[in-house]
Amino acid sequence: MSESTAPAAGLVVHGTGPNPEAWLPAAMRTALNAAADLGEGAQVELVVQGPAVALLAEASGPAGQLGDLVAAGVGVLACGNSLRSAGLAAGDLTSGVGVVPAAVGHLARRQWSGWAYVRI
Amino acid sequence: MSESTAPAAGLVVHGTGPNPEAWLPAAMRTALNAAADLGEGAQVELVVQGPAVALLAEASGPAGQLGDLVAAGVGVLACGNSLRSAGLAAGDLTSGVGVVPAAVGHLARRQWSGWAYVRI
Amino acid sequence: MSESTAPAAGLVVHGTGPNPEAWLPAAMRTALNAAADLGEGAQVELVVQGPAVALLAEASGPAGQLGDLVAAGVGVLACGNSLRSAGLAAGDLTSGVGVVPAAVGHLARRQWSGWAYVRI
Repeated sequence: MSESTAPAAGLVVHGTGPNPEAWLPAAMRTALNAAADLGEGAQVELVVQGPAVALLAEASGPAGQLGDLVAAGVGVLACGNSLRSAGLAAGDLTSGVGVVPAAVGHLARRQWSGWAYVRI
Repeated sequence: MSESTAPAAGLVVHGTGPNPEAWLPAAMRTALNAAADLGEGAQVELVVQGPAVALLAEASGPAGQLGDLVAAGVGVLACGNSLRSAGLAAGDLTSGVGVVPAAVGHLARRQWSGWAYVRI
Repeated sequence: MSESTAPAAGLVVHGTGPNPEAWLPAAMRTALNAAADLGEGAQVELVVQGPAVALLAEASGPAGQLGDLVAAGVGVLACGNSLRSAGLAAGDLTSGVGVVPAAVGHLARRQWSGWAYVRI
C-alpha cells in the first residue's frame, strides 16, 4: 500500500488506552473530520489498539458510527495482537473493520512511507 | 506555511485530553524547554485541542505562562473546532494565542512538511 | 546518531504520563513486540519521560523486563530532565538504561532523521 512514486499524503490516527468508551467515539469523529478537512487526496486510517478493539465487535455503541467512516473512505483497523488478547477473531468484528497484525508495526511503516501520525 | 525549499526543522507539540488543568502547564513547559533545546533554527508550536482551549481564554491560570512562550517564539494554537464546542471565539483567547481551523488537519500538514510530532 | 546516508528505519516509542506502574510494563512489551515485528533492519528505542523514570531505577518491578529489551537490541532511554525532577542521577538507573538530555528534543531529532514515532 502507498507505494506510488508520488509522496504519500496519508494520516494514521492512533487510538489506544483505558476507558475506550470515553475516547473511541471521539477518535472516530476526529478521523472523520480529518478526512473531510484534508480532502480526497489524503488517505486517513484509524488504528485501534488495546481493549478498545472489543468495541469494534459490537453492532451498537461506537461501532454504530462505523458506517459514516467507511462511507468517507476512512480505514478502520484493529490491532491483531489486541484482538487475540481480548479473545476475539477478525470474524467477530463489525463489517467494514480491517485488521493489521500489530498496531505499532503498521504505524511505523505508514510513517516511513510519508504518512503523518496523530495520537488521540 | 513552511513552504521553503530547505527542509523544515519544526516540532508540533500536541496537547489534548481530559483534565487539562493537570497537563496544560506541563505541556507549555515542555514546548518552552524544547524550543530552548532545539535552538533558533527550529520552529516549535503547541497545538491545543479539546476542552483545554478554555484555559487559553483565562488571563490567569495556565495562560499566565503564555508570555514566556511568545517571547521564546513558540506558537500557541487553539483548535477552532474545539473552541466552537466550548462556546468560545478567537476573540476570547488570551493575546498571543492563534487559531487553526482543525487541530488534526494542522498536525498532519505540518508533518507532511517535515515537522516532528510529540504528543503530551 | 543515525547519520548514515541510507534512509533510517527507526522507531521511537514515547512513554510518559501519570500512573507509570500501569503503562510502563505495557510500553516495554510494545517496544519489544515492535522490534520483533519490524525486524533487524529497524532500530527501536523506548524513550521514558516524567515520573516513570523512577521505575527504571528499581531492580525489581518493570525494570525486571529490561534484560529482554536489551537482548533484543531495543534502546531504553530516560529523559535527563525527568531524572533531575525525580532527584535521580544516571548512575541510579538499572544497568542497560541510557539517558538523553531531554526527551522531546531527542524525539524531534529522531523524526527529522526519518524515524517513526508512536506514543504509548
